[in-house]
Amino acid sequence: SKSYNITLLPGDGIGPEVISVAKKVLNLAGSLEGVEFKFKEMPMGGAALDLTGVPLPEETLNTAKESDAVLLGAIGGYKWDKNEKHLKPETGLLQLREGLKVFANLRPASVLPELVDASTLKKEVAEGVDLMVVRELTGGIYFGKPRGFGTNENGEEIGFNTEVYAAYEIDRIARIAFETARKRSGKLCSVDKANVLEASMFWRKRVIAIAAEYPDVELTHMYVDNAAMQLVRNPKQFDTIVTNNIFGDILSDEASMITGSIGMLPSASLGESGPGLFEPIHGSAPDIAGQDKANPLATILSAAMLLKYGLGEVKAAERIELAVLDTLSRGFRTGDIYSVGNKLVGCKEMGEEVLKSV
Amino acid sequence: SKSYNITLLPGDGIGPEVISVAKKVLNLAGSLEGVEFKFKEMPMGGAALDLTGVPLPEETLNTAKESDAVLLGAIGGYKWDKNEKHLKPETGLLQLREGLKVFANLRPASVLPELVDASTLKKEVAEGVDLMVVRELTGGIYFGKPRGFGTNENGEEIGFNTEVYAAYEIDRIARIAFETARKRSGKLCSVDKANVLEASMFWRKRVIAIAAEYPDVELTHMYVDNAAMQLVRNPKQFDTIVTNNIFGDILSDEASMITGSIGMLPSASLGESGPGLFEPIHGSAPDIAGQDKANPLATILSAAMLLKYGLGEVKAAERIELAVLDTLSRGFRTGDIYSVGNKLVGCKEMGEEVLKSV
Ligand SMILES: CC(C)[C@H](C(=O)O)[C@@H](O)C(=O)O
Ligand SMILES: CC(C)[C@H](C(=O)O)[C@@H](O)C(=O)O
Repeated sequence: SKSYNITLLPGDGIGPEVISVAKKVLNLAGSLEGVEFKFKEMPMGGAALDLTGVPLPEETLNTAKESDAVLLGAIGGYKWDKNEKHLKPETGLLQLREGLKVFANLRPASVLPELVDASTLKKEVAEGVDLMVVRELTGGIYFGKPRGFGTNENGEEIGFNTEVYAAYEIDRIARIAFETARKRSGKLCSVDKANVLEASMFWRKRVIAIAAEYPDVELTHMYVDNAAMQLVRNPKQFDTIVTNNIFGDILSDEASMITGSIGMLPSASLGESGPGLFEPIHGSAPDIAGQDKANPLATILSAAMLLKYGLGEVKAAERIELAVLDTLSRGFRTGDIYSVGNKLVGCKEMGEEVLKSV
Repeated sequence: SKSYNITLLPGDGIGPEVISVAKKVLNLAGSLEGVEFKFKEMPMGGAALDLTGVPLPEETLNTAKESDAVLLGAIGGYKWDKNEKHLKPETGLLQLREGLKVFANLRPASVLPELVDASTLKKEVAEGVDLMVVRELTGGIYFGKPRGFGTNENGEEIGFNTEVYAAYEIDRIARIAFETARKRSGKLCSVDKANVLEASMFWRKRVIAIAAEYPDVELTHMYVDNAAMQLVRNPKQFDTIVTNNIFGDILSDEASMITGSIGMLPSASLGESGPGLFEPIHGSAPDIAGQDKANPLATILSAAMLLKYGLGEVKAAERIELAVLDTLSRGFRTGDIYSVGNKLVGCKEMGEEVLKSV
């Protein structure tokens, strides 16, 4: 039987709770498909700061690099919010992405029929939304240099960052996006601010160049301000969206909220080779941490993405996806997606129910 | 009687139609309050490109600078979309903002009871939304240097921009935002990405420093990705939002779409002194240009902002605001805000009806 090494990074807040549930689901789905996992749990984020003084210990990064895939819970919390930049949990996450070279962040946002009422959008606008944001994750203004604090030519104090993209960075994320769109509806929308920013003009130029390799995919372009509007006006117009790191940060969060159930949404971050990083898109929710209230489904679905995109174990992945749908149709709901007539359960019980459906 | 010089910049697409209506409304409201206007119409945007070869002729900028206030219709269109950067209508707009030094862009987004159904958000989420985005307009990545195209240390082609803010730029927009919040509900939310960007850390530091001058205003901070979500989840939580140029571009468009009636929304751009720039937030809508279908209310309400924020003519401004509300309650609607049971009218007729109500 096949065996994979998985690094688990529970992190902070509700992270440990949702990871513990997802681990059980992975184990069961794997065993039913003849796949075995060896898990190694490592500290990261605020937990690592408290333990070792840094948000991403070298040992954690090395373990992650040597494994076949990485499953992360969530990081951050009030406790570390005022830390200096290099001692923030978030910095650990950026270091992890950079260290694993996972430049492609896939963030699906779809509205499940059972959960359409959870959206703040009208039913007719929300139902049927099924889009994928492909966000560039290791470049742009997040990592661009020069950056920092200083003074300008008038001696005024300044803070500054650099938005910069090299051709290869755009080309590789564009290819991932075209491949993704091809497997979906064949429609790709590239989002930029090419009417103002040179970095965006260059982005658009390279995306158009790469489009020649994918004549079967229909490419459109949209300015980021318009995209932010269109996601509210008519999210169904989108299938696959590709955009830079900062616009992707903003738009993928907006898109996920449009589904009304961010406790449900997984993500995958992939590189050219090496292990992928899989995590729910929700945060560490320190206010409900340790209370068995968290929704573990986003992490369970991230585990499914890990199987599908990280290990190519499509059957085990589909087992999990179907189990989640089955559990929902049996009426089980955590508080964040609860509506009258359903059964309110906690994090652990939701996990038990998914296990029954796997 | 008082007399003011107003520069009218009709621009492109539906711009000339909505400006012509707003001019009549300004004239009438002014005359009823003992205020007179001298209008000077100047070319700008695509219209100026066709006429003079540049999107903002020197004469247009000079006329604007020497006047008491500037009212702009809309700029841009397919025809000029592929132009080089310095020959884009948008570049003319950025030059106008820079030339007039209007660093503070005020963009109200409110849901009128009559138009709550126009929002794609559920009624209970949309109704009562009344927020103001204060966007920094002449700094940040829109204007930061260095910018352009080049090669990096590996000889790779790159495109790059600089996000940079000096203390005085943040301080002055923060003061405008605190003043605005004070006149409204006393709640200000500053939006940044201080968990990642130094420019945002500096932004937050300065906003906190300026907050000391406004102890009566309640200041909170939010990351931009979260703000993009919260605008969808519960827009009513916001009163005044202050943010940088690019985040403001994105979030103010998202906020305006949440109202469902962007054909209704005005904006004001103000500097330390000198004329303000007032414009509807909608675009030039080339597809309906010249067909008498445009909604002139955003431009009429921009004229009201011109009176209030630009000239201090509060009475004439309120006359216009009330006239718009009255016209809506009498059931007149352009196509973009039409719903069954109301009276569908064109741009001109809507203007006539507002004139009756002034
Ligand atoms: C925590 C933060 C650094 C991170 C980001 O901005 O990338 C988060 O918002 C995300 O989208 O994963
Ligand atoms: C047309 C464009 C340059 C402009 C901007 O990005 O500022 C527009 O989107 C706006 O918000 O006024």
